[in-house]
Amino acid sequence: MPQSVPQGQPAEVSKLTLVVFSGELDRLLAAFTMATGAAACGLEVTMFFTFWGTSFLKTRSTANRKSLVEKAFGVLLPGGTGGAPLSRLHMGGIGRWLMKREMRRKGMASLDELVVLARECGVHFAVCDSSMSLMGIDRSQLSEDVAYEVCGVAHLWDRAAGGQTIFV
Amino acid sequence: MPQSVPQGQPAEVSKLTLVVFSGELDRLLAAFTMATGAAACGLEVTMFFTFWGTSFLKTRSTANRKSLVEKAFGVLLPGGTGGAPLSRLHMGGIGRWLMKREMRRKGMASLDELVVLARECGVHFAVCDSSMSLMGIDRSQLSEDVAYEVCGVAHLWDRAAGGQTIFV
Amino acid sequence: MPQSVPQGQPAEVSKLTLVVFSGELDRLLAAFTMATGAAACGLEVTMFFTFWGTSFLKTRSTANRKSLVEKAFGVLLPGGTGGAPLSRLHMGGIGRWLMKREMRRKGMASLDELVVLARECGVHFAVCDSSMSLMGIDRSQLSEDVAYEVCGVAHLWDRAAGGQTIFV
Repeated sequence: MPQSVPQGQPAEVSKLTLVVFSGELDRLLAAFTMATGAAACGLEVTMFFTFWGTSFLKTRSTANRKSLVEKAFGVLLPGGTGGAPLSRLHMGGIGRWLMKREMRRKGMASLDELVVLARECGVHFAVCDSSMSLMGIDRSQLSEDVAYEVCGVAHLWDRAAGGQTIFV
Repeated sequence: MPQSVPQGQPAEVSKLTLVVFSGELDRLLAAFTMATGAAACGLEVTMFFTFWGTSFLKTRSTANRKSLVEKAFGVLLPGGTGGAPLSRLHMGGIGRWLMKREMRRKGMASLDELVVLARECGVHFAVCDSSMSLMGIDRSQLSEDVAYEVCGVAHLWDRAAGGQTIFV
Repeated sequence: MPQSVPQGQPAEVSKLTLVVFSGELDRLLAAFTMATGAAACGLEVTMFFTFWGTSFLKTRSTANRKSLVEKAFGVLLPGGTGGAPLSRLHMGGIGRWLMKREMRRKGMASLDELVVLARECGVHFAVCDSSMSLMGIDRSQLSEDVAYEVCGVAHLWDRAAGGQTIFV
């Protein structure tokens, strides 16, 4: 019986769920690096985007008929991988610019490249439905490059069961 | 043998421990949403409040005979669910006010309601003893609405064993 | 058969991996408190330092022949346990100073003491290789007091398998 799991011992971790709460460049980089690394190691990976993380999946299109707060969120959280600030040493954008330049210089994958890599590795993307509602983002505004599932917290625990969950 | 766990396979995750380190409104909302969602899915949930998270369980009463730093923490971290800032876009309280208004408008549960829900779902509350000491909070100051246990980090790992742990 | 693990049930958690992303004093204190507490409870603990966390293992020596950004990181992230800011109420260093004084007054272990304790408890230290490259830190600059392993994210999941992982 090659490859069979020995009785009475826990199987190797095979599932990883990342709850992506933050929308900052450094934390997104960490989340996608962990996700793609885990997928490359053969784990079944889900990224669940919630709160500030949802704005990341948004395209830059602007929709009408929004409440004032929805509009404010739309302006302050522009979406996509370009505008995310750093959680430290942001310095009005200089920190971000320097960080990005340094990563390019050293041949590191950019956030955009990591997103493509995650998709190619079969990372599953899920978006929190109530966060989308709170931020005033509707499905039509989500990036079409990424296949995602809009769902609630119950679904999160459904997928997370039997694996490890990380909050970023 | 219906419902019996198959030999050699790990059982479904049945325990979730949330280490609530942050005291910001958005992170507390995320923590309580995950906790109540998990409890509703049948998981056994513990929230372990530590550091900035402890001030959340504090009532607004002021006690005497405190050190200067304890007093400072008392003023700067007022306690309860009302005064917690946002981790981003706080804008001197405007961000918080807008966020709360938007949640009400959209029929989302407020933090106060999520705390009540967590209690009703049987979420277990634990408070880190050394954080309480550091912040100058004593048991008499903790909210009487919530049943909690004051304990140390060893107890945390005791409860967390065999489940998943999330740091918020 | 006393103490034998029953067949078909997961064994108690025996491994804990902490991904130390943050370089702030309060989060480092939380990470080391959890790590040493878990090690004292008999868990096999790994701390994986990445991003801002890597600067923590750096000594204060300055190396030449760095890029401008590497130099900037070197100045802005001085390294060691002394200069880490707080994530909240930092107030230009006053918050940190008060926090440290209060911890001393109350007989709590300082960050330096927790690092020594972690080493004595057998906590395994690993450092993310690409973070070191990004921050412009080379092996010669890492503190010689601590035995560490420089590795990538694949190794992280290798060690984390079958246990719990926490992102701080």
